[in-house]
Amino acid sequence: MAKDNILDVAKRRGFFWPSFEIYGGCAGFFTYGPLGSLLKLRVEKMIREHYVNNERCMMIEAPVLSPEDAWVASGHVESFTDITVECQKCGEAYRADHLLEERTKKSTDGISLPQVQKMLQKNNVKCPKCNGSLDKIYDYNLMFKTFIGPGKNKISGCLRPETAQTTYMPFRRLFELARKKLPFGAIQFGRSFRNEISPRQGLVRLREFSQAEAQFFLDPKQKGSHPNFDAVKDVKLTVLTKHDQTMNKKGKVMKVSGLVKKKLTNEWIAYFLAVSVELYKNMGIDEGMLRCRQHKDDERSFYSSDTWDVEFVSKVYGKIELVGIADRTDYDLKRHEEFSKNSMAVNIDGRKFIPHVVEVAYGIDRPVYSILESCMKKDGDRVYFSFPPAVSPYQVAVFPLVRKDGLPEEARGIYDLLIDAGFYVLYDEGFIGKLYYRQDEAGTSFCLTYDYDSKKDKSVTIRNRNDQKQRRVKIKDLVGTLRGLINGQTDFEKVGKPIK
Amino acid sequence: MAKDNILDVAKRRGFFWPSFEIYGGCAGFFTYGPLGSLLKLRVEKMIREHYVNNERCMMIEAPVLSPEDAWVASGHVESFTDITVECQKCGEAYRADHLLEERTKKSTDGISLPQVQKMLQKNNVKCPKCNGSLDKIYDYNLMFKTFIGPGKNKISGCLRPETAQTTYMPFRRLFELARKKLPFGAIQFGRSFRNEISPRQGLVRLREFSQAEAQFFLDPKQKGSHPNFDAVKDVKLTVLTKHDQTMNKKGKVMKVSGLVKKKLTNEWIAYFLAVSVELYKNMGIDEGMLRCRQHKDDERSFYSSDTWDVEFVSKVYGKIELVGIADRTDYDLKRHEEFSKNSMAVNIDGRKFIPHVVEVAYGIDRPVYSILESCMKKDGDRVYFSFPPAVSPYQVAVFPLVRKDGLPEEARGIYDLLIDAGFYVLYDEGFIGKLYYRQDEAGTSFCLTYDYDSKKDKSVTIRNRNDQKQRRVKIKDLVGTLRGLINGQTDFEKVGKPIK
Repeated sequence: MAKDNILDVAKRRGFFWPSFEIYGGCAGFFTYGPLGSLLKLRVEKMIREHYVNNERCMMIEAPVLSPEDAWVASGHVESFTDITVECQKCGEAYRADHLLEERTKKSTDGISLPQVQKMLQKNNVKCPKCNGSLDKIYDYNLMFKTFIGPGKNKISGCLRPETAQTTYMPFRRLFELARKKLPFGAIQFGRSFRNEISPRQGLVRLREFSQAEAQFFLDPKQKGSHPNFDAVKDVKLTVLTKHDQTMNKKGKVMKVSGLVKKKLTNEWIAYFLAVSVELYKNMGIDEGMLRCRQHKDDERSFYSSDTWDVEFVSKVYGKIELVGIADRTDYDLKRHEEFSKNSMAVNIDGRKFIPHVVEVAYGIDRPVYSILESCMKKDGDRVYFSFPPAVSPYQVAVFPLVRKDGLPEEARGIYDLLIDAGFYVLYDEGFIGKLYYRQDEAGTSFCLTYDYDSKKDKSVTIRNRNDQKQRRVKIKDLVGTLRGLINGQTDFEKVGKPIK
Repeated sequence: MAKDNILDVAKRRGFFWPSFEIYGGCAGFFTYGPLGSLLKLRVEKMIREHYVNNERCMMIEAPVLSPEDAWVASGHVESFTDITVECQKCGEAYRADHLLEERTKKSTDGISLPQVQKMLQKNNVKCPKCNGSLDKIYDYNLMFKTFIGPGKNKISGCLRPETAQTTYMPFRRLFELARKKLPFGAIQFGRSFRNEISPRQGLVRLREFSQAEAQFFLDPKQKGSHPNFDAVKDVKLTVLTKHDQTMNKKGKVMKVSGLVKKKLTNEWIAYFLAVSVELYKNMGIDEGMLRCRQHKDDERSFYSSDTWDVEFVSKVYGKIELVGIADRTDYDLKRHEEFSKNSMAVNIDGRKFIPHVVEVAYGIDRPVYSILESCMKKDGDRVYFSFPPAVSPYQVAVFPLVRKDGLPEEARGIYDLLIDAGFYVLYDEGFIGKLYYRQDEAGTSFCLTYDYDSKKDKSVTIRNRNDQKQRRVKIKDLVGTLRGLINGQTDFEKVGKPIK
């Protein structure tokens, strides 16, 4: 499935589109339409329910705008930068390392500003747009800056580049609420921002994006052993270690327990790799397109001692990081202690120490895109999204066969019944063929039609999206039948009766 | 209940607290803790479900950051200002109208900058902080500004002051998705921003806040009649018209139908006043603390022909606007057409026109606060929140009587059962009295205790928060019993058996 197909359907059906189109657009900003908003809501719900119910995380929700102080402490004011070159002639700005990679076809991971500058000159790299000279080179900070408050007493503010720091800052309050015990987790959903130099990859590289970042605070002694590790130890993952990458090896399939036994990572990181892959599978992402990749030493962020990503191998954009799982050590809390003069130490079992943090940082927009790419199917002229019911914007659509003879009112009754039962339901009217076509492109799992026979046999026709098969179900059994179909316990072939 | 009580409990129990505390705080920013995040989520869910299921609104989700262009068109660059005075000595800035109101005890609605300046001088108003002279006066724009992109080609950006414009801009896409029919609605949830001069009212006046704004696009001919009006026409509301206010009259109780018959407003606005009051009641806000107030001509926003607020009459903060319902006419779409050169006109029944908009703009943080204030009860030493189960952060808490003899494992089983059934559940361990006390302050509707008898009688004790009464329920009936209690169909007195 080509990029144009996905973006065309996404726009036409109202999943998402570039923001500010009427004003000529602005790179790096996308708007979710009706279907995309619902899909995104479902992705967030799945992550939230797992982390709140199963990992017993607290929720927290902080502002996206904050005084600059916090980001001095975190290191972002100093280090959250890209090396940028500007064309003296047309003013266009570029990521210097990207220009260099394009020219030399070599990785620039960990390269310094003076090195980049030297290499650009040596390779005589010019402005790709106007061939002008690229002699203005500088570290460009990726945070959006603003001022908070008016007049002389205003202070500098930043839009957060990650939710993480806004969860770390109130650590003491969270620790109190956790009744001074470790480990405990807190998860934050919300927007974050990166003033990218030149974002050109749709939902995959946004200047404003949604995240769900879980932070687990722990005693470093606890790092070796995750309480639920046994539940995932036999799960198989496609793994690419930093060593594999240095040796130019391909990834291999390994058991989660093997990752720990071979000392490739600790139980916490291994556990959350398995949890994340499972979540993505449940969202409908093809497991064959997922892999767990460890960051190499020269690409890892300044705050981390070990980082792994789960990546989606997109046919359109190449590798996409969906979640980053990092051992952030005590770096962040230590820095906040240093800069704020507020102690972040805890007293446990007679020892005083600053807790370590294992972070599980989910992007939200990228899985939304990956689900669309992975679930988009072509079957002759028919295009449909094979979303599992857990993420389908609508699990069920209800139609009357025709727009008369009281059928719409009866169909609305079915709609109300299903809404009350808690399903995600859409009501629509029109020519049935066209309605099916539309729901295929919306990825609706099941369509129900109320027809002229429905009054007599108190049944409706149910259509299964993927294979287009139809069966007849009693209205009184509808809620139970749909529950079974949606949670995967009922086989469609055994639902109601075949259509005569 | 005094302000300190509410804020103390809110902080201690983790509903919310001032953001960036470790860096000395920053006025106008609050962070939701675990209970507050859940409460907020439930408030959003109630609004979303009503508007998506009952009003058949599409959802849309746009960026909070946008190019400044959009806000020139909307009028915000020019008109979204407060008159500000700065102290020449200490640099402190103030809202000039507020200083004047404090001094003169008279309303300053609709007053111009030169008038304010004259009045300040005439009344010899000085800096309240240092008594310095206040001679720098100017229109201060309340939008946070930043730059998007690097280098010479960067563009000016603003943090949106409302979601509304970001729903209007893609009107043509939404209209296509609505299959070119009017009326249709779209609702957007998300953050908005106002760089307030001196916010000092907790969750009630924030620089960064959450909204849920529904926009209904309609043919001006449709304005007189809302399709569901009959369902609300006999609802009684406490009403304060602009005429009442001009005449210094008090509000009166009126039927919704009376509002329209007396031509005080149109059916759309009247309908959504009734819908909103009903929503707030379902959230647990005391109806006696709610009233529907029409904006006076001199306070109404520049884009509106008629605006009404539902206000919560707080014992701490005075009147708080919870939702604004405005007839925005064709003002916004017309402006976007003019500034973007993209047509916003539609062709319906052979007529070409720009649709009108009725906006229902909910704040989210203010109802969260209002629910807390309205539901906080004191009963001797006991403090509890009488949240209805629809918004209780946790509907149910599950405890083992003691931390041994296998009771915790059994209680965890009950927890899992209830999670799978879709309830909002908390598991906890400790001294039962202390656990009850904690759940009272969390506003948990029901507590379940698994004790030594539970294994024999296959039952648990259920405790009702408000009256602390206890009954014994069979575990096999638990899910059904809780469903009935939560949706209000079951009376607690009839649940299971009395405790012997």
